[in-house]
Amino acid sequence: MIDKQIFLDLERLKRLGMVEAVWGENKSCEQIAQILRKIKAAKQLALVTRVNEKKALELLEIFDDAKYHYDSSCLTLGDALLVEPSLGEVLIVSGGTSDFRVASEVELSLRLHGIKSEMLLDVGVAGLHRLLTNLQVINKASVVIVCAGMEGSLPTVIAGLISQPIIGVPISIGYGVSRGGEAALNGMLASCAPGLLVVNIDNGYGAAMAALRILKSGIKNNF
Amino acid sequence: MIDKQIFLDLERLKRLGMVEAVWGENKSCEQIAQILRKIKAAKQLALVTRVNEKKALELLEIFDDAKYHYDSSCLTLGDALLVEPSLGEVLIVSGGTSDFRVASEVELSLRLHGIKSEMLLDVGVAGLHRLLTNLQVINKASVVIVCAGMEGSLPTVIAGLISQPIIGVPISIGYGVSRGGEAALNGMLASCAPGLLVVNIDNGYGAAMAALRILKSGIKNNF
Amino acid sequence: MIDKQIFLDLERLKRLGMVEAVWGENKSCEQIAQILRKIKAAKQLALVTRVNEKKALELLEIFDDAKYHYDSSCLTLGDALLVEPSLGEVLIVSGGTSDFRVASEVELSLRLHGIKSEMLLDVGVAGLHRLLTNLQVINKASVVIVCAGMEGSLPTVIAGLISQPIIGVPISIGYGVSRGGEAALNGMLASCAPGLLVVNIDNGYGAAMAALRILKSGIKNNF
Amino acid sequence: MIDKQIFLDLERLKRLGMVEAVWGENKSCEQIAQILRKIKAAKQLALVTRVNEKKALELLEIFDDAKYHYDSSCLTLGDALLVEPSLGEVLIVSGGTSDFRVASEVELSLRLHGIKSEMLLDVGVAGLHRLLTNLQVINKASVVIVCAGMEGSLPTVIAGLISQPIIGVPISIGYGVSRGGEAALNGMLASCAPGLLVVNIDNGYGAAMAALRILKSGIKNNF
Amino acid sequence: MIDKQIFLDLERLKRLGMVEAVWGENKSCEQIAQILRKIKAAKQLALVTRVNEKKALELLEIFDDAKYHYDSSCLTLGDALLVEPSLGEVLIVSGGTSDFRVASEVELSLRLHGIKSEMLLDVGVAGLHRLLTNLQVINKASVVIVCAGMEGSLPTVIAGLISQPIIGVPISIGYGVSRGGEAALNGMLASCAPGLLVVNIDNGYGAAMAALRILKSGIKNNF
Amino acid sequence: MIDKQIFLDLERLKRLGMVEAVWGENKSCEQIAQILRKIKAAKQLALVTRVNEKKALELLEIFDDAKYHYDSSCLTLGDALLVEPSLGEVLIVSGGTSDFRVASEVELSLRLHGIKSEMLLDVGVAGLHRLLTNLQVINKASVVIVCAGMEGSLPTVIAGLISQPIIGVPISIGYGVSRGGEAALNGMLASCAPGLLVVNIDNGYGAAMAALRILKSGIKNNF
Amino acid sequence: MIDKQIFLDLERLKRLGMVEAVWGENKSCEQIAQILRKIKAAKQLALVTRVNEKKALELLEIFDDAKYHYDSSCLTLGDALLVEPSLGEVLIVSGGTSDFRVASEVELSLRLHGIKSEMLLDVGVAGLHRLLTNLQVINKASVVIVCAGMEGSLPTVIAGLISQPIIGVPISIGYGVSRGGEAALNGMLASCAPGLLVVNIDNGYGAAMAALRILKSGIKNNF
Amino acid sequence: MIDKQIFLDLERLKRLGMVEAVWGENKSCEQIAQILRKIKAAKQLALVTRVNEKKALELLEIFDDAKYHYDSSCLTLGDALLVEPSLGEVLIVSGGTSDFRVASEVELSLRLHGIKSEMLLDVGVAGLHRLLTNLQVINKASVVIVCAGMEGSLPTVIAGLISQPIIGVPISIGYGVSRGGEAALNGMLASCAPGLLVVNIDNGYGAAMAALRILKSGIKNNF
Repeated sequence: MIDKQIFLDLERLKRLGMVEAVWGENKSCEQIAQILRKIKAAKQLALVTRVNEKKALELLEIFDDAKYHYDSSCLTLGDALLVEPSLGEVLIVSGGTSDFRVASEVELSLRLHGIKSEMLLDVGVAGLHRLLTNLQVINKASVVIVCAGMEGSLPTVIAGLISQPIIGVPISIGYGVSRGGEAALNGMLASCAPGLLVVNIDNGYGAAMAALRILKSGIKNNF
Repeated sequence: MIDKQIFLDLERLKRLGMVEAVWGENKSCEQIAQILRKIKAAKQLALVTRVNEKKALELLEIFDDAKYHYDSSCLTLGDALLVEPSLGEVLIVSGGTSDFRVASEVELSLRLHGIKSEMLLDVGVAGLHRLLTNLQVINKASVVIVCAGMEGSLPTVIAGLISQPIIGVPISIGYGVSRGGEAALNGMLASCAPGLLVVNIDNGYGAAMAALRILKSGIKNNF
Repeated sequence: MIDKQIFLDLERLKRLGMVEAVWGENKSCEQIAQILRKIKAAKQLALVTRVNEKKALELLEIFDDAKYHYDSSCLTLGDALLVEPSLGEVLIVSGGTSDFRVASEVELSLRLHGIKSEMLLDVGVAGLHRLLTNLQVINKASVVIVCAGMEGSLPTVIAGLISQPIIGVPISIGYGVSRGGEAALNGMLASCAPGLLVVNIDNGYGAAMAALRILKSGIKNNF
Repeated sequence: MIDKQIFLDLERLKRLGMVEAVWGENKSCEQIAQILRKIKAAKQLALVTRVNEKKALELLEIFDDAKYHYDSSCLTLGDALLVEPSLGEVLIVSGGTSDFRVASEVELSLRLHGIKSEMLLDVGVAGLHRLLTNLQVINKASVVIVCAGMEGSLPTVIAGLISQPIIGVPISIGYGVSRGGEAALNGMLASCAPGLLVVNIDNGYGAAMAALRILKSGIKNNF
Repeated sequence: MIDKQIFLDLERLKRLGMVEAVWGENKSCEQIAQILRKIKAAKQLALVTRVNEKKALELLEIFDDAKYHYDSSCLTLGDALLVEPSLGEVLIVSGGTSDFRVASEVELSLRLHGIKSEMLLDVGVAGLHRLLTNLQVINKASVVIVCAGMEGSLPTVIAGLISQPIIGVPISIGYGVSRGGEAALNGMLASCAPGLLVVNIDNGYGAAMAALRILKSGIKNNF
Repeated sequence: MIDKQIFLDLERLKRLGMVEAVWGENKSCEQIAQILRKIKAAKQLALVTRVNEKKALELLEIFDDAKYHYDSSCLTLGDALLVEPSLGEVLIVSGGTSDFRVASEVELSLRLHGIKSEMLLDVGVAGLHRLLTNLQVINKASVVIVCAGMEGSLPTVIAGLISQPIIGVPISIGYGVSRGGEAALNGMLASCAPGLLVVNIDNGYGAAMAALRILKSGIKNNF
Repeated sequence: MIDKQIFLDLERLKRLGMVEAVWGENKSCEQIAQILRKIKAAKQLALVTRVNEKKALELLEIFDDAKYHYDSSCLTLGDALLVEPSLGEVLIVSGGTSDFRVASEVELSLRLHGIKSEMLLDVGVAGLHRLLTNLQVINKASVVIVCAGMEGSLPTVIAGLISQPIIGVPISIGYGVSRGGEAALNGMLASCAPGLLVVNIDNGYGAAMAALRILKSGIKNNF
Repeated sequence: MIDKQIFLDLERLKRLGMVEAVWGENKSCEQIAQILRKIKAAKQLALVTRVNEKKALELLEIFDDAKYHYDSSCLTLGDALLVEPSLGEVLIVSGGTSDFRVASEVELSLRLHGIKSEMLLDVGVAGLHRLLTNLQVINKASVVIVCAGMEGSLPTVIAGLISQPIIGVPISIGYGVSRGGEAALNGMLASCAPGLLVVNIDNGYGAAMAALRILKSGIKNNF
């Protein structure tokens, strides 16, 4: 019954060129459905993050044109935006298989905004050769997004090797002092490598939107 | 007497296009002098951050071609790099006069790498009109770097208004829960605005190097 | 069997003009029922906060004159107090739909004490225009209570725009560094806006009682 | 040389009825002097908080119409505002002599805005009788501001005894777990007394501005 | 199969006059059963704390002479120790009904060691009169144990009123900053009242054993 | 000029049998002098803790009957209380020489209240034999107070060996994770030994007052 | 479907002589199965830690040559490595029965690498005699690994008694300030005993691999 | 006057083969002198860590056979122990010049116990090539001790490359989230590399003693 008081930011698309992501974790199905109806009525693309399977099934019953993405636990309604292909490509690097959900959230968020990306998984620094043999792939990307839990040193090592923009996404997976992702977060912020940028723990969507800002800025800078 | 064991990263310039910044705060004059001699011998540009006035005077005695920058508490040795002007411009925004030292470190670090920047000081969110009347200036920049202490909400508000890359620099100035800069840091990481990027507290040099990566990436993306 | 040793503060109503709220989260149904019987026997109004649906159903079976409020997860027994209408009106502002449960606890707590309030939801600072177009509504209120999670900058922005008493309620909803509500709490405490007041994370009842103290003080001040 | 880029919030007085306080602790004399000149040119009242004696003497040399307040470590330039006397009176209560500087900052900040206040010092809860014998004084105040360090339980005890608005100011004085003021801050936020409001540690100015908002709201509510 | 490697401290009774408490929360039924068998074989009294109902039922099936105490979530096997009645009496005071489980753990632990105690519940400081009208009861006790969650100021207030030994037990019940019991713990440690002693959060058994040490010391001191 | 508003707790002596300790660390000489004059006028004994040498010299100039105690950094004015010798003796144990100042504060605080104590220094657990060869001395004490910094395990080991009341005083001396005393504090609170009691970090006076409560309770219990 | 992007560190065995442990806690059955297939194809030994019973049963269905180890919650696939017996023996000491799962993870991890170990359980410092009577056993070991929760003082006491390499494993079991294992971790790091080494909370596998490094180094040092 | 109560652990040398290090930071010159006299009387070697220059000069006046080591801020009295050369060599690796004091404390502590070591400075991961070109040197060492501040990822990278025992020493040098050394400490504890061991922040002496334990264990294992 809170329907009429909700002020969705439907002009975000026009203002920022970004779809408003609905954070699904602490919202009830009913709350999400209300929001989706508003977005649909405005003929916009909807992205709901952190939707568990149970909630997703309920929402798919209500919205038969919605789609659930298991890998990223996201639900979408509507088609991806079209962006000119010249924007460049994003590479998503990850230190371990446990980072896969967040890495997938990055990939989906980019795809919805018309940005192509590739993934390079399980290249953690404990086995450095995996990273070094992939350096060429890394060097081709316009922006590199690195997901890492535990001590989070992967983005530091990569930032020392390449000159492109690089965004670290700390992952909450871990135990003991790395439980919750703070050791990884602080490791990335305290990094001795110059110019490493950081977003909140597990914030795949945020990293994707930052990459989008950077890629678009490339166009602007040259005209 | 530790001289011969030091392995400076003198190839950073070639590899990353960045000058290695020497963090001066916890080094003795003697240690800094040793490092400066090595950099000078390699004919590279030296940037020492967080050098207090007393240390600076001692170092200026030793290196008569060094220069001390009061506003940013930095010391440099050698000439700024030349970079093609087409890279675009950076805007440095700050919430209060107390952020000035870090904002100046950003400006100097950019200038040494051939990047032009402007400053917009004291436009904190408690007097929102100051920000809104400067929106046009903000919108012209290729990258926006926002320094903010206290609750650190300034980059969040700006990130909701513009579509360019935006980097938040939390400032350690404050008292009570904002003492040390963690309230500002967490506020920026937790931001509800999409795609806000963050560096370590007071890390002006890091924000500048991230902006450099972004500006260069703009060139790459278009050729 | 602890019944006879409980000393409820039944004179709170007389002393402070406030109903004693029973915090239901960590009490068993049996414990809540014992307390409700005592309050009922004293012919007072009972407010139990943070009662989940399962507990509520059990309690509704025992007390057929009790009422469960889904939006705020509160249970009440007895009728709202009557207060003269001249006390002024409270506006409850919130940054996102996830704050709705706490905002509803504010609203219910006020209503039980005879205070009228309105809600303005989803006006987060990432889309500033939503707030600015509602400034007139905000300016009419005698007291403004702002619920915000994430980085919690909404009350700071509003406190810079209006001169009325303003109370920030940090919300525990969020992830990473904003998980648990501490980033929002510290952001409100560290606020650069003058005179912003804060209560504990998720403490909707407390914010309402503070507003009640303020509204009553208005009467007292003028006689 | 940062002079022309400073955007002081000189309309704060008109917008909020409050003087902009300059936080003096981390600003150099030169920075404070620049700001004072701007405020003076705008013919406004200036309040600089946390100015140590050494800085104060330098500033008094520059501005011969400035005044230094030892008790509160504040410096002012210009005359207090005139406010109608009917706004009511504030009582400042403190748990120990060590809270005196912050209590004095509250008193000065109120006086500059034309608000009268009284102080009741050293009535900590470890000697409860001191508080109970002063209850009548406390009950006469329109707003009560309570400064407390250590465990910070004084505002909780008072909030259980009176029905007026009550604002807790945690004090950073203490040792061990109370060092820095967080034990007092959390104690006030976690308070079992209904409707206790809190500001940042040592934030005397903030508490005063909140009291001002409340006192003014009393007028508004009745017209 | 770890059986033969367990070295229970069965001489604790002789050495300290205390029963070894088995902390049941993170042990499996099988692990607890193994330990109980060893204690039983040594003809000692067994006290298992933090046993949930499910585990208790399983254990009661195995040990038909065991007894489950619902109020304290403890399980015992064997008879209470006999102690001369002259040791004096303990008073258990609590700030709210939610503290009841821990208060009951104190009571049971004392009873098993032959010490008599009384309970005074729900006398939180927000309604000070409840405490003051019970001062005579409090003054009769040899040792006072005070359980308090939230801001934990109850033991501070009592310690300022009486001269007996007083032990604060912080309770983990609460939300926001008092969630987990740290605000209460720090409040008790930072207490401005002289000579308040503290144990770990929720450590009812520990507070009881400390009281036992004190009561026995009374005998020793006089012979 | 704050003189007339100070409400010293001069009845503490009568009520609790304890001298009010003035915490000297964050008070100016002038503030301490004002307080001392009030206590002197009331013909009571004054104890000021944490007075550095510089302040002490200034105060000794003003009060020629004052006495400065270097070992404990305390200043006293007036004679120690007389207490019947039958109260028993306190043993002060310490893990390292760095704990000596706090151990001395315990000793002085006890002596002022007529309680005799002995010290056993430098018996840290890393050389267990030092402790074991002193067990007989430890066993003779009525109350044992153990000061320990670093990991703070000394009181745990002792509490497992003796049955008397035992009070742990965490010491702030240390580096890295033990810096500030929190590792020692948490180690004592988390102790696996039954009935170990704890006071705030460095709180020698508090530990002494707790011992006084215990020793007096011994008398009460037996009459 | 992430299969082809996974870069397992299959050369770890050759490079470090260690099996790569798969951290099973936050991986789905499907993710673990994919990894196990890759390891199996490479004819290597697989060790999956922190696999709950439910996941284990599913995996045992898929891999009929896998084995689940209840005590340590680990799953293995393939045979233990063969190592020459002369490497020496490890002793695993633990303070309480609740540490058994982690102690078992140490034992299994060692066994898979061909290292023999013994366990000494429940010898916590609160009953010191248990430790002292086992000193001879402890003195025979080449490396001692000590698991301890609560205040974690057991490794400190042992490190003061023996001269062998000693590794502390903090255990997350506990409540209040020892909940999560940080009190134990900090207690071990802050230890006053010289040369105590520490691994992450609950990191049994890590402690075992460190012991393996030490035992192998013994060989190397002597040839 | 505390002299006779000090129980130095003079048998540590016999028991553990280690010199007792006196932690000099929080001890007065007089306290250190008392201890040195005792050690000298026992004809043992004395090592005092964290002695600043001022204290050192005072102590050198008293003890003309003492020696001050500027690089490590340590003071010694007496000759280094003799140990058979076959024990193997330690390599001390460091990420930056600021780690030099702690690295020197490691070197001195080893040398005093007859152990040879080499240093490899400034090979931080941001310039990985410096590390990779030194791999052969690293591989020759029996034990590797890695000092690292900032994000502390250097020991993780090395532990993935070599199979010897490796000890990480977090360094307190840094700013923002790495200030105090906790980011480095947690990064090392959370390391994804198997078998990395950690000591307290800045604990050079501790790392050296751990290396000594390991080197000696090598002998024991083979005889």
